[in-house]
Amino acid sequence: MSSEPTSPRVVSRSHELQSALKGLRRSGQTIGFVPTMGALHEGHLSLVRAARRECDTVVVSIYVNPTQFGRGEDFDRYPRNLEADMRLLSDVGVDWVFAPTDAEMYPEGFDTWVQPGRIAERWENEFRPGHFRGVATVVLKLFCMVGPDRAYFGEKDYQQLLVIRRMVEDFNLPITICACPTVREPDGLAMSSRNAYLSPEHRRQARVLSQSIFDAAERVASGERSPDNLVAAMRKIIAEASDAVIDYAAVVDPNTLEPVSAVTGPVQALLAVRIGGVRLIDNLRLTPPSG
Amino acid sequence: MSSEPTSPRVVSRSHELQSALKGLRRSGQTIGFVPTMGALHEGHLSLVRAARRECDTVVVSIYVNPTQFGRGEDFDRYPRNLEADMRLLSDVGVDWVFAPTDAEMYPEGFDTWVQPGRIAERWENEFRPGHFRGVATVVLKLFCMVGPDRAYFGEKDYQQLLVIRRMVEDFNLPITICACPTVREPDGLAMSSRNAYLSPEHRRQARVLSQSIFDAAERVASGERSPDNLVAAMRKIIAEASDAVIDYAAVVDPNTLEPVSAVTGPVQALLAVRIGGVRLIDNLRLTPPSG
Repeated sequence: MSSEPTSPRVVSRSHELQSALKGLRRSGQTIGFVPTMGALHEGHLSLVRAARRECDTVVVSIYVNPTQFGRGEDFDRYPRNLEADMRLLSDVGVDWVFAPTDAEMYPEGFDTWVQPGRIAERWENEFRPGHFRGVATVVLKLFCMVGPDRAYFGEKDYQQLLVIRRMVEDFNLPITICACPTVREPDGLAMSSRNAYLSPEHRRQARVLSQSIFDAAERVASGERSPDNLVAAMRKIIAEASDAVIDYAAVVDPNTLEPVSAVTGPVQALLAVRIGGVRLIDNLRLTPPSG
Repeated sequence: MSSEPTSPRVVSRSHELQSALKGLRRSGQTIGFVPTMGALHEGHLSLVRAARRECDTVVVSIYVNPTQFGRGEDFDRYPRNLEADMRLLSDVGVDWVFAPTDAEMYPEGFDTWVQPGRIAERWENEFRPGHFRGVATVVLKLFCMVGPDRAYFGEKDYQQLLVIRRMVEDFNLPITICACPTVREPDGLAMSSRNAYLSPEHRRQARVLSQSIFDAAERVASGERSPDNLVAAMRKIIAEASDAVIDYAAVVDPNTLEPVSAVTGPVQALLAVRIGGVRLIDNLRLTPPSG
């Protein structure tokens, strides 16, 4: 079932959202949910369109969650533009937009957290300690408010996707997690709200992220089986950008995120690179030739 | 709406339970839920009767949750008697009994936890570190499986009740937590599955727990305002039991569980005492005279 594009109803109070959706759920409508931090781009919109195709009611949340930002990170300057976001969502045909305040999400006395396990320990966590605790907690809260049948996440935040999948399974949440492919700019750069921070020169340099992982995919398709060789080649491509600083570049098991010792099946290339102080991440599935 | 007593349907698989209850929920039935560790007594049954009165469908879980027991605690010898439990639940008229295995609750790879905050730090936590993490995690899981409108907890486990209330509020769970008064034996001992561990002599001595907090309630009603005096009097009564060892005896704020410096309003007496190696807890609201 799909509906004509209409202006989404915007609510900022969780109780209002919960009571509105309770009736829909009882009437048998399926609810699709896309949690976002706003500053929407085609990556987000691909998630919203998938929800629109697959669910009767589509709910999008727009909330820049303070608990997933560390000290000294970009919480304060993270782009916020509800008006532009609403126009984009109207075009796709979203039913509800949930745009809560910090006081609504974290009222005084808030003190219970979701603690993800091993899957959240490596990679991003080494550079953003506590990040996934904040992500998992806010996503659980939003899930409890919205009560979706299906929730949509981008593969671009690959470790986040695995953290959420693990949480949903471990907590027995009756929600299907739907992963959507990374959406890229014409030159390959993964879409991200943080791309807006890049100067024109750094935007040009940022192409090395996707170039390096697509190169790795070609190497694996051509028979390369050494993760060390792959990472070395990725680092070499990234080094071509004069202002790039690598946080990590790795070839890992797609389920556990543990480094692999040889490419004997599909693996995941993971990348976090700072370019002119802007931190970008990307990843790609690398699939060896069959047989 | 209430139904005639019937034999509860027993399920051990969460998916079976979830799909059975989903239909009931869609049809507008309210679901009442009583999580237990089995070894049911009148305390549990008072919760089940409350659920039966207030909800269309009543679900009771019976699961001795390993993650809330510490090393060296009584997980292995905790009383288990599903047959006797089922007879008791049949008499009250329960619709569903969920009795999962450990493999169902904590399958391989399980790795996400609920981390309660400050409310879980004192008192029980000092003697059972990690206990409330296990409690909060299993209760969240059961909530996600059952999807109840109302869930019933005994005031006897007072700190647990506050931990659960905090979690429900912090995670925006659409569940009403219903607290039911502690049920006591004729001599005042709070009912507990662990009372079965007591030898006849220690069972006799165990009366000092309730005696001490009821004495404290009388003192407060008579104008005593000093927590130190109250705790001293409680300790004196407990010392009359020759095998009693106090883990803690305290007079605290009923909401924060922080010790109070004076009794200027309702306070909570909290008690944990080991008698012959059996650890018992009790608590009571102490209310000063009005005006």
